[in-house]
Amino acid sequence: MILSENNVFFVMGVSGVGKSTIGNLLSKELGIPFFDGDDFHPKENILKMSKGEPLNDEDRFGWLATLNKLAKDQLKENSCVIVCSALKNKYREILSNGVENNTKWIHLVGSYELISERMKQRSNHFMPTGLLKSQKDILENPVNAINVNISLTPLEIVEVIKKELNPKSEFGLFGLGVMGKSLSRNLASKNIKLSIFNRHVDGIEEDVAINFKNEFEELATTKAFDNVEQFVNSLQQPRKIMLMVNAGKTTDIVIESLIPYLSDGDILIDGGNSNYNETKIRLDYLLSKNIHLIGTGVSGGEEGALKGPSIMPSGDKEVYKTVAPFLNAIAAKDANNLPCCTYVGKEGSGHFVKMVHNGIEYVEMQLLAEVVNILKLSGNNYDEIADILESWKSAADSYLLEITVKILRKKEGSDWLVEKIMDKAGNKGTGNWTTIATAELGIPSTLIPAALFARYSSFYKEDRVKLNRIYDDGNTSSLNLTTEDILKAYQFARIINHFQGINLISEASIKYEWELNLSEIARIWTNGCIIKSNLMVELVAVLKETSNLLGYEKFVQKIKKLKPSTNKVVSQCVLNEMAIPCLSESVNFFNGHTIANSPANIIQAQRDYFGAHTYQRIDDPSGEFYHTNWK
Amino acid sequence: MILSENNVFFVMGVSGVGKSTIGNLLSKELGIPFFDGDDFHPKENILKMSKGEPLNDEDRFGWLATLNKLAKDQLKENSCVIVCSALKNKYREILSNGVENNTKWIHLVGSYELISERMKQRSNHFMPTGLLKSQKDILENPVNAINVNISLTPLEIVEVIKKELNPKSEFGLFGLGVMGKSLSRNLASKNIKLSIFNRHVDGIEEDVAINFKNEFEELATTKAFDNVEQFVNSLQQPRKIMLMVNAGKTTDIVIESLIPYLSDGDILIDGGNSNYNETKIRLDYLLSKNIHLIGTGVSGGEEGALKGPSIMPSGDKEVYKTVAPFLNAIAAKDANNLPCCTYVGKEGSGHFVKMVHNGIEYVEMQLLAEVVNILKLSGNNYDEIADILESWKSAADSYLLEITVKILRKKEGSDWLVEKIMDKAGNKGTGNWTTIATAELGIPSTLIPAALFARYSSFYKEDRVKLNRIYDDGNTSSLNLTTEDILKAYQFARIINHFQGINLISEASIKYEWELNLSEIARIWTNGCIIKSNLMVELVAVLKETSNLLGYEKFVQKIKKLKPSTNKVVSQCVLNEMAIPCLSESVNFFNGHTIANSPANIIQAQRDYFGAHTYQRIDDPSGEFYHTNWK
Repeated sequence: MILSENNVFFVMGVSGVGKSTIGNLLSKELGIPFFDGDDFHPKENILKMSKGEPLNDEDRFGWLATLNKLAKDQLKENSCVIVCSALKNKYREILSNGVENNTKWIHLVGSYELISERMKQRSNHFMPTGLLKSQKDILENPVNAINVNISLTPLEIVEVIKKELNPKSEFGLFGLGVMGKSLSRNLASKNIKLSIFNRHVDGIEEDVAINFKNEFEELATTKAFDNVEQFVNSLQQPRKIMLMVNAGKTTDIVIESLIPYLSDGDILIDGGNSNYNETKIRLDYLLSKNIHLIGTGVSGGEEGALKGPSIMPSGDKEVYKTVAPFLNAIAAKDANNLPCCTYVGKEGSGHFVKMVHNGIEYVEMQLLAEVVNILKLSGNNYDEIADILESWKSAADSYLLEITVKILRKKEGSDWLVEKIMDKAGNKGTGNWTTIATAELGIPSTLIPAALFARYSSFYKEDRVKLNRIYDDGNTSSLNLTTEDILKAYQFARIINHFQGINLISEASIKYEWELNLSEIARIWTNGCIIKSNLMVELVAVLKETSNLLGYEKFVQKIKKLKPSTNKVVSQCVLNEMAIPCLSESVNFFNGHTIANSPANIIQAQRDYFGAHTYQRIDDPSGEFYHTNWK
Repeated sequence: MILSENNVFFVMGVSGVGKSTIGNLLSKELGIPFFDGDDFHPKENILKMSKGEPLNDEDRFGWLATLNKLAKDQLKENSCVIVCSALKNKYREILSNGVENNTKWIHLVGSYELISERMKQRSNHFMPTGLLKSQKDILENPVNAINVNISLTPLEIVEVIKKELNPKSEFGLFGLGVMGKSLSRNLASKNIKLSIFNRHVDGIEEDVAINFKNEFEELATTKAFDNVEQFVNSLQQPRKIMLMVNAGKTTDIVIESLIPYLSDGDILIDGGNSNYNETKIRLDYLLSKNIHLIGTGVSGGEEGALKGPSIMPSGDKEVYKTVAPFLNAIAAKDANNLPCCTYVGKEGSGHFVKMVHNGIEYVEMQLLAEVVNILKLSGNNYDEIADILESWKSAADSYLLEITVKILRKKEGSDWLVEKIMDKAGNKGTGNWTTIATAELGIPSTLIPAALFARYSSFYKEDRVKLNRIYDDGNTSSLNLTTEDILKAYQFARIINHFQGINLISEASIKYEWELNLSEIARIWTNGCIIKSNLMVELVAVLKETSNLLGYEKFVQKIKKLKPSTNKVVSQCVLNEMAIPCLSESVNFFNGHTIANSPANIIQAQRDYFGAHTYQRIDDPSGEFYHTNWK
């Protein structure tokens, strides 16, 4: 009886491709017997070959039948590796006769030049190199074989074979939205054996996975599913499943749908924009079921996900090591060709960091919107504004600046497309969460709320139009600003934005004992993500020294140069009744954060007056609390 | 056998106090028989009295024994009311002989003049008024009697008796912090039978309730506890227990400690600054145990709580009606003498409204701090600033303005006390929650976050001092503002603050289907609370017409008058590098909220560029979403 799970692995190919070496290594890796087919030639064949006479098919048939019998005998007990050139279909038919379903062909292939070169370096082989050409001529390429190119090292070849032998996928991707699709193509293009899943919803989401697979060449060997159980069972254990689904309730529902099919030690990777608090709760919950969770920020949008995003994973460090090769493979590369992916820290720190990334992004976008508006009201058209912004690249280059230039230049017929776009800015929740985090943690990262609320205000379009009719006095703008002033204000506000974002991460790291590496976080943000910029590249080095940009000499000098123009821009915008919430707040924050004595003493006195909340005194360094009867 | 719960109520007192009237009414109220002792006199006694001869003790003893027998016979079946002057201890000993534990003495008392006056108006009584003086002389005041003064109306007297007969308290107050103590004294001063509780913590909180009770005369009849079970059992059912404990976890712990002793239908009133979301969760949880929760905002600080706070209760409307008399009794009164307490709405709406109240308060305080700072840097000392603020009363009076004037004038020796107060502003969480609510609900109530973050920034005192050394260029202020300009900016920002706060309540009311009455909310904020002001009084009428102050004609005219000065103040402060986060944000918000076309179209284009988030078009009123391939 032949056990159904036993297989004979025929390592085949023309002379000189290294069949014996690979076959030997493979048998050791798989822990099964190895047989070199040449050892089973009858004496007459060996004699013929040693004389330089080629074997004819008559010569071979008996020998091949011997090998077939060897395979059958072995298969009753075990799998085995047999090396044999097996160049023609009819030879292979004899070899696999009666054990077709238990036969795997491993075909080693290489160019004529490479094989010749290698044969010349070998001495212990009785086949003259002159035979190579004739073998190449008679070779009939097998179908259903695992083809492996011999330009790899023997160890690499064996790895490829093992991977191909395993019918299960290495990595699963759940959820084929914009980001899920791009990440799938990215993973597949890195030769990762992939299973992809998208749910089935009658009439709305039908055959999403299979249609997507058929659309892109790189997905040829990817397995597509709309059945959760089959999807999970298609994965090697410990399973690695990346979830690219909507954050919040959907993520919980998806996790619950997976749990019944998962095994101890499987790893879920939540690549959505989940709330960091929820990630911690999910991590603990899954751990109680012996399942691991890696919460992972992924930035880069559709294009970044496809070509290389910035990836911010967190959770258990040992578990992370298991998924690291996959995440590193698909991540963007920094200037030193290191992946823009790093272990961020424990719990939901990866999602926290991604959340702050998005908060910084909100502000960078709002600042560009404010700058465009100022330049517009200064009398420039959109092409002129694009030219101005483009000229800022050397001073303030960033991905967002670059795409804004392209956006401003985009025409629809003879009109600028931006002029047709409704001025109601949407949001998907991370700006909201960052605002909540800054409020809850007691950290004044004020620009993110300012940018968030600017989006909220934009939503009151109908109110705005009505109120504009009431309040617009018809005065035209009398802005008197140079583009240099505006650039300086933009640069100043960006420094404050990055200072605040980093401060928020730094303070959260202390509070939650995450021990985050701020410089590493800046490094993985230098490419692949939406907020990549020259400033971010600069910060990688700076953050090795301090998290307080405002006190760092190089930035002190910059700020001192930028501040007067910023004051001028903000005050003129106020006098001209323009809304510049982020530019304005950058100034207010800085002024408030660099004042030695703030008027908060008045507030403390008021609180003590009506609520007996007590206050501390500047002349009592012990920090004792005092109460006054004020009446 | 005499049933232990049956009682004979002897209504006693000198002639002419109205014993028969009160005894009759009381018997009807309690549904038990009534007996007038005079009806049981033997003939010889009646004859003697009609002749004007006083009865001697010999005359009385048989009669009193008759009444004692009457009482004993009645007590076997029922309770009863017996009227009898019972002036001496020995008479009362006969009357209660053998039924001492079932006897209650109700002693009607009044001045000689009042009784004489009343007797003169009565004709159907056989006792001449001349006897009154002798009765007063022989009266031995009973111990353990319920003494009721006859200056009240008969119905009121019966109410007092009923209340005194019930040994249980009407209302419980749990937690004797600053607010709990003040509310207890307020409740007790309204003749509400009160039980108060404070926990026992060895060496820290010992005998808090009993010591507090002994400190204040109005708490003479209040019952003090440090045992939860005894406290709960001291209350009439359905119990009404007001919790004045720390919001959050403490509130949950306290509720759990009470539950084992509560009965179906009991009512907890959470008067702490609980989070409105948690109030809803607690309400549902308690309802599953047949216990009701009224979540109640209470504003006014220590003094307001004592003299009359503003109260914002929410929950089930029918349940509210049961506690309304107590809350109305202790609330402040508005200009029309109506209580500053109203049913706000269902769920946690009362705590939501209180939260926004506190948010508005944060901003009002911050604005005053900014104004004081501007006036200071304009060269005024604190007395001069106090004078200026005082002169603003007719234009912008408010409780907070008034206390700020007093605060600025407060001296410590020859120094202003405010100069000694550390400029680090504390907070207790409601400003944080309002910021979170405004972020979560998608409503740009931006001044509250600005005020909150100003407090957070103030906490970075050490950083501020260090950074100030780096950035302070030694330039003195060159502010050139009139106090009229500053007043106008202050008024403008206050309008925006109230607009935003009301808008937040209004939008939450729509989202949660609370159906809040904005005018009523403004009304209960016109007295008792920290943000009471002339502006609030004005809003009571306005909010009957609209919730959008910015579009209301009277406010449009105000704003147009105030805005130019506000622009001037803000721009000059920016040029002078002063932090004015709330004044500045009021301008930015207004400018952004009254612009017809905002630069949010740029943000939408960016989002579509990198994330395929799509956008709407101004030339497609259908609201359809578009995506552009921007490259």
